[in-house]
Amino acid sequence: LRAGDIERLSALMEPLHSADAGDVIEALEQDERLALVTLLGDAFDYSALTEVDDAVRADLIEAIPNADIARGVAELDSDDAVFILEDIEPGDREEILNQLPAFERLSLKRSLDYPEDSAGRRMQTDFIAIPPFWTVGQTIDYLRADKDLPDEFYQIYVVDPGYRLLGTLSLDKFLRSKRDIRIADIMNADPLTVPAASDQEEAARTFERYDLVEVGVVDDAVRLVGVLTIDDIVDVIQEEATEDIQRMAGVGDEEISDSVFGALKSRLVWLCVNLVTAILASLVIGLFNATIEQMVALAALMPIVASMGGNAATQTMTVTVRALAMHELDRRKVMRLISREMIVGVVNGAVFAVLIGIVTTLRYGNPGLGAVIAMAMIINMFVAGSAGVLIPLLLNRLKADPAVASGTFVTTLTDVIGFFAFLSIAGLWFDLF
Amino acid sequence: LRAGDIERLSALMEPLHSADAGDVIEALEQDERLALVTLLGDAFDYSALTEVDDAVRADLIEAIPNADIARGVAELDSDDAVFILEDIEPGDREEILNQLPAFERLSLKRSLDYPEDSAGRRMQTDFIAIPPFWTVGQTIDYLRADKDLPDEFYQIYVVDPGYRLLGTLSLDKFLRSKRDIRIADIMNADPLTVPAASDQEEAARTFERYDLVEVGVVDDAVRLVGVLTIDDIVDVIQEEATEDIQRMAGVGDEEISDSVFGALKSRLVWLCVNLVTAILASLVIGLFNATIEQMVALAALMPIVASMGGNAATQTMTVTVRALAMHELDRRKVMRLISREMIVGVVNGAVFAVLIGIVTTLRYGNPGLGAVIAMAMIINMFVAGSAGVLIPLLLNRLKADPAVASGTFVTTLTDVIGFFAFLSIAGLWFDLF
Repeated sequence: LRAGDIERLSALMEPLHSADAGDVIEALEQDERLALVTLLGDAFDYSALTEVDDAVRADLIEAIPNADIARGVAELDSDDAVFILEDIEPGDREEILNQLPAFERLSLKRSLDYPEDSAGRRMQTDFIAIPPFWTVGQTIDYLRADKDLPDEFYQIYVVDPGYRLLGTLSLDKFLRSKRDIRIADIMNADPLTVPAASDQEEAARTFERYDLVEVGVVDDAVRLVGVLTIDDIVDVIQEEATEDIQRMAGVGDEEISDSVFGALKSRLVWLCVNLVTAILASLVIGLFNATIEQMVALAALMPIVASMGGNAATQTMTVTVRALAMHELDRRKVMRLISREMIVGVVNGAVFAVLIGIVTTLRYGNPGLGAVIAMAMIINMFVAGSAGVLIPLLLNRLKADPAVASGTFVTTLTDVIGFFAFLSIAGLWFDLF
Repeated sequence: LRAGDIERLSALMEPLHSADAGDVIEALEQDERLALVTLLGDAFDYSALTEVDDAVRADLIEAIPNADIARGVAELDSDDAVFILEDIEPGDREEILNQLPAFERLSLKRSLDYPEDSAGRRMQTDFIAIPPFWTVGQTIDYLRADKDLPDEFYQIYVVDPGYRLLGTLSLDKFLRSKRDIRIADIMNADPLTVPAASDQEEAARTFERYDLVEVGVVDDAVRLVGVLTIDDIVDVIQEEATEDIQRMAGVGDEEISDSVFGALKSRLVWLCVNLVTAILASLVIGLFNATIEQMVALAALMPIVASMGGNAATQTMTVTVRALAMHELDRRKVMRLISREMIVGVVNGAVFAVLIGIVTTLRYGNPGLGAVIAMAMIINMFVAGSAGVLIPLLLNRLKADPAVASGTFVTTLTDVIGFFAFLSIAGLWFDLF
């Protein structure tokens, strides 16, 4: 690369799969990345850019002249082209689109008009569409003659002259049929479809449920506008899982390659929320200053009750949030889950009440203190189980993402209840008010 | 169902996709499920059982006579059959296998011999294998003639007489080629493969990275023994994501349909670990009994420092664990991540030190107390950032699953450091020892 040896560089890069080429780009320093793309020129395969981290792609795209991007994007499948174009700022994007051939420009613009994270954004607009009256033989001849087919396809779409979808035909079924059979007789006349405006997560659910490899995307008038393939959906599934995991922990849409500033931005909000709720818990403790002053052992013991409640609540909440994300809960399962978690809370409470009661009695030689912490533990573990299942379900009912806020809400509640139950029972028991 | 109207029942169930049939089964009461399967008899499609929760399947399989299961399983694709058989206890499994035709029995046994969660367990053993010297035309004729083809396939495998894999051919490329072309000339002669003994998670990573739909599974002698298709891999990806999420929260391999007892079992271990660590934190506080007695406000403030550290550590840990699970970290990125998280820790520490310092000063009218809590906050947030990234990386280096134990380790550390830093600085500042 340093020697500027274009021949050798393209010989090295050419045979690489785009995922590997992406890794090469990521391993380079920022200025080397630009040098690589500039040196390779038209020999650079822009699909490698779909395989690098968002931050790396954004920097590189920013640095490459728009005319080069336009030439590179024109070579790509439409879904890869949209993936690269959607993060470019509108002004530059217009300029790039205007340098593309009319047909590509229109189809990319149409995809970009669909909302972010919709099936329409992710879809591939090249697909094989044939009329129902063709025979298997005619279709094979057409496929053999046409050079402008999509890179990879797993289904053939049967449409009327207005591109309304009449049926689909999988390649394996097609291959097993004799040349003189009419397409209309072997196609699946009632195919699953995905509306272009629907969320990519909904589309992923359909793929998963029905073990699909490719599905047609239709517009409001049930016209076929594109296809979604499983490789895009696998990425969606991973993204959604990452999102769920990170949201539960109070981290936003952050990536490993984000800068310090990016990481700070995605985390400060929830740390602020946590500060407020921690101060709230502290105010609750403040109510019992007089109690603690008379029996300082309470200060050392109270975090145990709160911490156990927080952990138990997180367990219940995680199971609930994940089940909601996977659409595993119908009405009946919800009722079953709620009652199960409440029982688990009580049983956990009883088990750990006995344990901590014994430990406390032994350590402080005070059976009364053991009884107090045991009672507080039962109460807090039951609250933890109930809140851990009810709060995510409530947020989901209110159309909020249960993963986003459940963590902070639930642990605040178990902190406050834990401190309050323990200190107030202690105050009453030992007559410290 | 109650009326025992077999005709109507099979008319209702027959057109259902196995995912929908699975939902019907789950919606029934336990005794109704058995009644449904018994009534339908040979008309019951056992693939529905691959779509229900583990607990539901186990109960139902237990109740159905082995001979019926054998008949049902014989109809299935080999991967579905293995999925059902692998959870049956060895004695019953032997009995069922012995009732199957010899060829199926051998291929199922071979799959079951591979370790749990391996590619060999998940693979489908029906596939299209042809010799390299055939032409496209010969192959099409073979596909049209053979009635015993797999249900769905996306690739044709080219093998030598010993079943060693020579190449693969995707159906779309195959379709575009003329009848007289030799398979050897158009096949991909250097196909990706997955070793049968490799973990399903590794296989999933290969699918994702190279956007595959189907891949050949080879044994130690590089003989083709089966194929993995993307629909199985999508399930693997979801399972692995659920596992990661649940492990971070200290929940085992639990499902929504598990009983109270199952849920308790999967959670008690980590609650016990948390009890021990909470007692440890309590002992640290106990060291400062005299300090707290002289200034009871410390008891109310100390959980704030601990809680903020716990939250920040969880954020960092979640990002790290997820990146490890997705294999996103090479040596260079690890160094970058560690330094980023330490800087984020310091900056977060500074921001929240100022905030909590001001709040504390105002509330207690004591600037010294504000300064003390601010210092403790900076220390604990830095520890949180460092531990949040270093502990998962260390566990990963030690070949332990970073998701399993990180949560408890990391928050224990921030609790202990938070309490210790705050109380010891306060003791020194106000001369309370």
